[in-house]
Amino acid sequence: MKLATIRTTTGTAAVRVDPDAAVELGAADLGEFLARPDWQAAAGAADGPRHDLAGLDYATLVPRPEKVFCVGLNYRTHILEMGRELPEYPTLFAKFARALVGAYDPVELPAGSEQVDWEAELGVVIGAEVRHADAKQAAAAIAGYTVVNDVTARDFQYRSVEWLQGKTFERSTPVGPWLVVDEGAPGEISCEVDGDVVQKADTADLVFSPADLVAYISQVITLVPGDIIATGTPGGVGHARKPPRYLAEGSTLVTRIEGLGEQRNTTVATGSLAGPGLGTGH
Amino acid sequence: MKLATIRTTTGTAAVRVDPDAAVELGAADLGEFLARPDWQAAAGAADGPRHDLAGLDYATLVPRPEKVFCVGLNYRTHILEMGRELPEYPTLFAKFARALVGAYDPVELPAGSEQVDWEAELGVVIGAEVRHADAKQAAAAIAGYTVVNDVTARDFQYRSVEWLQGKTFERSTPVGPWLVVDEGAPGEISCEVDGDVVQKADTADLVFSPADLVAYISQVITLVPGDIIATGTPGGVGHARKPPRYLAEGSTLVTRIEGLGEQRNTTVATGSLAGPGLGTGH
Repeated sequence: MKLATIRTTTGTAAVRVDPDAAVELGAADLGEFLARPDWQAAAGAADGPRHDLAGLDYATLVPRPEKVFCVGLNYRTHILEMGRELPEYPTLFAKFARALVGAYDPVELPAGSEQVDWEAELGVVIGAEVRHADAKQAAAAIAGYTVVNDVTARDFQYRSVEWLQGKTFERSTPVGPWLVVDEGAPGEISCEVDGDVVQKADTADLVFSPADLVAYISQVITLVPGDIIATGTPGGVGHARKPPRYLAEGSTLVTRIEGLGEQRNTTVATGSLAGPGLGTGH
Repeated sequence: MKLATIRTTTGTAAVRVDPDAAVELGAADLGEFLARPDWQAAAGAADGPRHDLAGLDYATLVPRPEKVFCVGLNYRTHILEMGRELPEYPTLFAKFARALVGAYDPVELPAGSEQVDWEAELGVVIGAEVRHADAKQAAAAIAGYTVVNDVTARDFQYRSVEWLQGKTFERSTPVGPWLVVDEGAPGEISCEVDGDVVQKADTADLVFSPADLVAYISQVITLVPGDIIATGTPGGVGHARKPPRYLAEGSTLVTRIEGLGEQRNTTVATGSLAGPGLGTGH
C-alpha cells in the first residue's frame, strides 16, 4: 500500500495511491492521518474523492513532522572500506520541517554555499507513539518507508563540529513520493546527478537497522506518528570525490530505492521560488 | 513587560504577568500569541481573566516552538581562559519541543545516563518571521529574553560526534518563567546546584549576540514567532570540574538571570512522573 500527501486546489490531502487513481483518506496530510490509531485499516478501506495519477502534485510526505532525526555514517561496507570501525552508537542529528520538500519539487541551493552535496537515504516514518521500546515494539511502531535525499551544504556543515547548519537549509530535503506500507524490505538505493550514477548500495547493509534506530531514539524521547528518521547515506557523496563534485543551479537529482519509488528534483537558487511555505501547501 | 504560559484548570493560557496578577491574553499559549502580528500592542492592552500570582503554575514558555536552536561555546572569557581562539561561526545544534519543561517543573534524569550536567543559558524568543535578516531586522525580530537550562547527558552527548542525543532528552530543559519584553539588557547569569554557585557570568560576554545569532540562523532557515535560541553556557559545568560533578536524583537546580527571573527545578528519575505530555498542558 502506498500513501502520500498531495497538493489539491483546496489545500493538501492525504491519499492512498492505487494503480489507477489516488483516493483521498479524509485528512489534510499524512501526518494528521497517521495520528489516527486505526490508520492502517482506515487507509485500506478509504473510498474518498479520487485524483488522476497523471496530474498528482506530491507535497513532502509529512509536511510538519514533530521531529526529523538523521543518522550519520551507517552503511557497513562504506565504513569498513574507509578503514573505520563500526560504531557502537548511531550518530544522530536533527533537521527542521521547513527543510523538507516534495519528491518532484525544486531543491533550493543555500545562498552562500559553494558545496551542496547529495545524500540518498532510506527514510523511516513512525506510525505509533513509542518510548523505551524493545526490538519488537520498535518494529511495530514503523508505519513504512520512503525515499529521502539529505541534501547538505558541506561548507556550512563543517563550519563547526555540529552539522546542523549544513543540514537544515530551507526547502533542501526531498521526502517521498510515497509512504510504502507492508510491501516487503526495501532494496537497492541509488542516486543519479545529471544522469551519472553517483551512489548505489543495498539498504540491507545498514549498521543500525530501522528498528534499531527506533528503539535507540525512543530511549531519548517519545517518537510519535509522522516523525521521520533518515537512516544515513552510503558511499559516493560528492565531497569525498577527487576532485570533489557538487550540485550547481539546474542540476537534476534522481534518488531511487527499489520498492519505494523515485524522486526527481532540480536545483534552483534560493529566492527564485515564490511561496508557498509551511501551511500553504508545503 | 513579562509574558508567560500558565496551566489553568481548563488548559494552558498565555498571560501578562503584572505586579499584582496574571492577566489572560486570549491565546492558548505564548507561541500562539506571538504569531499575532500585533502581539506587542495586544499584550499591553489585554484585560482578560486574572489569576493570583501566588497560585501560578508555569508551563514551559512556548510549549510547541517550531524550532529550538542551541549554541555551543559562546562566552568570550571562558573560551579565552581555555586557551582557544574565538570561533568564526556559531556552533549550532537542535533540541525538540518534548525536551522542554516549565521553570518550576521536575527535570527528568535520562534513564541510562550517569552524567547529567547543567548549562545555564540566556534564551532568545522570536517575535516576527525573519529570513536573510540584516542586523537591524534581526534585532527587531527578537520578542524578548528568558532563562534556559540546557540540561545535558554528557555520556550520551559524547557517544558520537553529534551532540543531539545528549541534548534532547524528554522533559529535561526548563524554559521560563517569563518572556521579558523591552526591559533593558539582561545582566548576570548564574546557576546553583544544591545551594552551591557553580556558574556565574555576564550575558554581555557572548561572542555571538542574540541579534548576531538571529541574523546568522536566518541565512539557513526562516525563524518564526515562538522559535527559541539558547545562546550557550558560560564556564562552570560539572563535566569540566576535577573531579567531575553531576546531578543526582533530588538535586535542586536554580538558574537565574538578572532582569529575567529565576527557575528552580528538582531532578527526578525518568518514569516517575505521570503525564501530562505535549498537548495536555505541557
